[in-house]
Parts: sequence; structure tokens; C-alpha cells
Amino acid sequence: MNLKMKKIDDFFEKIITVKLSDDGKAVNIIDQTLLPNEIKRIDLRTKEEIFEAIKKLRVRGAPAIGVTAAYGMAVLSRGIKEKDFDDFYKKYKEISEYISSSRPTAVNLFWALSRMEDKLLSLKDKPVDEIVKGLFSEAEDIRNEDVEKSRWIGEAGFELLKEIREKTGRAPGILTHCNAGTLATAKYGTATAPMYIALEKGWSGQDMHVYCDETRPLLQGARLTAFELSEAGIDTTLQCDNMASALMAAGKIDIVFVGCDRVAANGDSANKIGTSGVAILAKHYGIPFYICAPDSTIDRETKDGSGIEIAMRSPDEVREMWYEKPMAPENISVYNPAFDVTPAELITGFITEKGVVTPPFGF
Amino acid sequence: MNLKMKKIDDFFEKIITVKLSDDGKAVNIIDQTLLPNEIKRIDLRTKEEIFEAIKKLRVRGAPAIGVTAAYGMAVLSRGIKEKDFDDFYKKYKEISEYISSSRPTAVNLFWALSRMEDKLLSLKDKPVDEIVKGLFSEAEDIRNEDVEKSRWIGEAGFELLKEIREKTGRAPGILTHCNAGTLATAKYGTATAPMYIALEKGWSGQDMHVYCDETRPLLQGARLTAFELSEAGIDTTLQCDNMASALMAAGKIDIVFVGCDRVAANGDSANKIGTSGVAILAKHYGIPFYICAPDSTIDRETKDGSGIEIAMRSPDEVREMWYEKPMAPENISVYNPAFDVTPAELITGFITEKGVVTPPFGF
Repeated sequence: MNLKMKKIDDFFEKIITVKLSDDGKAVNIIDQTLLPNEIKRIDLRTKEEIFEAIKKLRVRGAPAIGVTAAYGMAVLSRGIKEKDFDDFYKKYKEISEYISSSRPTAVNLFWALSRMEDKLLSLKDKPVDEIVKGLFSEAEDIRNEDVEKSRWIGEAGFELLKEIREKTGRAPGILTHCNAGTLATAKYGTATAPMYIALEKGWSGQDMHVYCDETRPLLQGARLTAFELSEAGIDTTLQCDNMASALMAAGKIDIVFVGCDRVAANGDSANKIGTSGVAILAKHYGIPFYICAPDSTIDRETKDGSGIEIAMRSPDEVREMWYEKPMAPENISVYNPAFDVTPAELITGFITEKGVVTPPFGF
Repeated sequence: MNLKMKKIDDFFEKIITVKLSDDGKAVNIIDQTLLPNEIKRIDLRTKEEIFEAIKKLRVRGAPAIGVTAAYGMAVLSRGIKEKDFDDFYKKYKEISEYISSSRPTAVNLFWALSRMEDKLLSLKDKPVDEIVKGLFSEAEDIRNEDVEKSRWIGEAGFELLKEIREKTGRAPGILTHCNAGTLATAKYGTATAPMYIALEKGWSGQDMHVYCDETRPLLQGARLTAFELSEAGIDTTLQCDNMASALMAAGKIDIVFVGCDRVAANGDSANKIGTSGVAILAKHYGIPFYICAPDSTIDRETKDGSGIEIAMRSPDEVREMWYEKPMAPENISVYNPAFDVTPAELITGFITEKGVVTPPFGF
């Protein structure tokens, strides 16, 4: 292994969202509530600790929550003393339902727990220690599949970065919004995967320049994306959301990579509020705009963006968060949607683990 | 005077940025550093108090600073004991230069001080008490001219609001960015003038709906615009800058009014960072985008936007301001331009005191 690879491995070791502890008796996570001010890894050994970590957003990001729950069920299954399958299963089910209630809207959490339970049921005729071994292996599979999907997204995105670098002869300028990074997934992230793969392929952190929208109201871009990319040694700049147009006008952005929460069959894509605005700016300035997401993000049952319901969040996220006192009138009305829908016609392509999909989209 | 007019007058009495105190011995301002959490008016009686108020941004906004300096020189001239013109002028000049140094980049401050000095020199053969009277009258003129210009901008903008209301049959949705309001001028503001004039013409606060971009990094939209409009009883909503696209997509915005710092001869316009992004969104959604500014904002010497230099501000404005701890990595690079340039082709029209100017622009 060369020195660069060693450096990236050290980075992932330090930053990776979730892994099994060395003794296999705990889920080890980076406590994201302390970022970017403190990098602290914690072991989750009990069901209460796992529940609390998910509920308090110490771990967040759909894939990362799924992996945490999967590892968690494997670790906790080892603590079940019952040897008879029915008794074991009853105990297991209690724990699984408890973990499941930690974040009632996290679809990926339920998906991972259900997949773990299916594995358990498939081993119903085996002795308990083999069941436990099977659960560890299933959790590892869930994690590895996420890493593999992100790796493929990264490989495809990296090809685009290479093209830009060859064409322009300089480090590509990349704009991203919110956090679709390591801290949301098992390893490479989605929107960040092209950059991490670039490092693994031998690019230096100065061979690209990533501009991170701070992403109001909750600042995931400032707190998480700017943090993880600069930790990885990538040339990173933070800007307020309203500065993206000036960056593009100044010729600093060659490509936009964002993640995605849900893609409708026609390509309309729901992602963190502000994404549609970035797409409109990119189109105006003639800059390619890519959505990086696993194929599982595509919701083929939803015809178009009009079928995607957008949750409104608390006004306090916009009015408060400031030092000393609120920075807005106390009772002012607030418009605070969690997501917006980027119409398909603004999207240059989707980068999934299956490759780059360009228009016309018909999923 | 009807009740509605009484209500608007009471609002201006409470909120107006700067006026002469009732005894004429002080400049009375609203302390904008305490907004939106406390409405406190303070009297500035000494040159040190005036200097400090401008320097510490207790009063801000180019026209408002000019009026403060003009009233200030009138008030302070009354305190000059010298009766001989040359002695009086020497003393006056010392004070004027001191006030002038309170904010070295405020062109309007120098302009107002220079106009006051011209007035003084024009009265050189008169007795001191007549000179002082002349200075009060000149300060009053400076203030009244600003009010008049804003009133004309407001009248022209109000016609546009009326058209929208007639066409759609509902309360116009107006988006604004940063603060080009009462709190930046002598009375009506520029971008807010159409709304205040609407109130004076008998519209209720519910006959329009204003959406204020919070305007990161310094949040003038949240702290000042959302505050003053809601104080005036206008239906007001605050949103993060990155939510403007979702608002427009939802059909909530009929027109955009923004202020402006400097207009080049071809119509390219420098205004608070983020303005060009709003203009691009408005064009994408087919929403008219108007710049409201006095004719004096037009810089006929500057050919186009490329000649307008944009200052970069401190990274700390983006990284800090948050409760508890910084919300971004400590040493992260930050892109923090104060302004951006909106290209002329994105501007539907300029609303000045001379009326509405539509393309092609050639100032």
C-alpha cells in the first residue's frame, strides 16, 4: 500500500460513521452531534445506547442508520441468553421493535431491521450460536453492499472529474449541497464518492476544489460536508447558500454533485431544500448538474415530483440557532420546507451504482 | 386623517430610522443593533455619540447615514460658541471631519457632509444664528428629498402591485432580499416603498404578502426587513435564502423587489450577495424582477458590471454567529463576497424616482 492509500485509510478509520468495535461487542460510531468541534468515537453496547444514538442524531443519514441498526441487532443478539428458538426470537423481536421506534420516519432503519429479521428466520433450525454468526454476517453484508454501491457511484463520477481536468487543464471545481458524504453512509458517501475515489486513484487533495453550500437551516454542509472533506485533505471552501450564483459567475464551478432522497419515475428528484435552486443556477450558467444516489432511491411507483410530499419543519430552526438572542422577530411566520423537488429537465444525469443515466429519464 | 393613516404614521414614528429630537437638540435614532429583540430610540447629543452610532452600525443604510450626519452637523453647529465666521468654520470643519471618519467607505456620509458644508459656505456673510438655521433647513431638505424619492419609487411600484392584484384577484406575493427598507433610509425605504405606499393608499397588511430572504451571512432580511414589515402590520414570512426556489415553484411569488448599491451604465447591478441568484430564479419561473433605487445609484461612469469591484468580507461571518460553538470547521476556507452583480438581461426594470425604466437599458 502506498502512502496516499495509507492516508485515506487513516482518514476513513477516524471518520467512518459506523463500524463494529474491535472486540465485536459494540457498534462504534462517530458522535456527529459534536462535529465539527470535536471528533469523538463512542461504543454503543446496550439497546438503550443504540436507541439514544439514533434518536439524538449522533448517527444520521439513511444508509448509516441502517448499518447501525444491523450491527446493533447482531451485537445485541449475542446477549440473548435463551437457547430455544422461539424464546430467542421473542427476545430478539422485542429488541428489534424497540430500536425501530427510535426514529419513526427512517425508512432505511425499518428496511435494515426487516432484512436482519428475515435472516434470523431463515436460520430458525440452526443452533443459537450459528444464528448469531449469521446475523453478524448479514450486518456485514448490508454494510458492504452500501460501500460497493457508493464505490460504483464514485467510479462513474470520477470519470466526469477526469474529463473536466483533461479538458480544462486545472483542478475541477465541484459544488455540493447539504451532506451526502461519508457521514451519511457506510464509507464513500454518494455526492462525495467521486472525490474520495479520486483520492484512492492517486489524485491529491489539491487536484480538485470542493465548494460546500452551508445548507441552512441546519447547516449540514458547514458542519458535516466541509468538515469531512477538509479532514480528508481535499481543498474545500464553505459558502453561504446565496453565494452559489456568484461562485458560478466567477467560473469557479465546473460540475455539481448532490445526493437525493427520492427520485420519481420521470426523474423529478426530492432532495434537501435548496437543491432545485442550485439546479436552476447550474442550468443558467451551463454547468452540469448530477444527482448521485443508489438505484434504491428511485421510487418507480411515484409518477412525478407532484406526488412527493414535502414536510414543513419547525420555524425555530430558521429563527433561532444564533448566539445571544434570536436573529428574527419572535413570532414571525416562517417558510421552512425540509426538501424541494428538482424537475427532471434541470438534471444532467443520475449517477447510480449502475452507471450514469442521462435524459430522457424513464425509470 | 383616517384610522389606517393614523396607524401607519404611528408605525413610522416608532420605527423611523432617524429624525430630529422634539427639542431640536439631538439626532434621534432607532438603535438597530438591538433589533429585532428590542425597539429602543436613543438621542445622540454629542459628536462622540454620533460618531459611535455610525461606527457601531446603530444606524446603517446609505441614505439613513447621510441624514444622520446632516442632522448631526446642524445640531452640533448650534453648540459652536465662536461668532466670527472663520473661527466658526474652523470649529465646524473639525467636527465634520471627525464625523466623516466614522465610516470610511460610506460614500453617502461624505456626500451629505459635503452638501452641508457647501450650505455653510453659501451663508458665509450671514450672522451665526442664521447660518445655524440654514444648516437645519439643509438637513431637513436632505431628509425630505430622500423621503420624496422613496415615495416616487413606492408610487411606481404600487402600480405594479395593483396590476397583479387586479389580474390574479388575490394578494400579491412579493419576494425581497436583504434590507432596502425604512431602516436603511429616511422613511419608505426603496424595495419596501411599494408596500408602505400601498398601506398609505388604503390597502390592509393582508392585501399583500411579503417573503423575506433571511440574507446570510449577516441576516439583514431576518433581523431588519422581516421586523419592520411585520411591525407595519404587513403579512410577512421569513425564509432561508435557499428556499426562494421552492417558494417560486409553489406559485407564491408574483414579483421581486430588491434594492441596489450601484448600477452600471448598461444596467448591470451590484447588490447584496445572493441578488443575482434571486434574479436567475425569477427568470426561470417567469416572475418579474425589479430593482428599486434612486437615480443617484446609477453610476454612468462604469460601463458594465465587470467594472464593479466586489469586496470580500471576513470568514468569521460565515463560520461563527452560532450558539454554543462555531458551526463550521475552525480553519475552513470561506467564500464570502459582500455583493454580487446581477446582469442587466435578468432585470425586468428599474424603479427610480423618475419612473420605471425597462430594457434596453442605457444610462
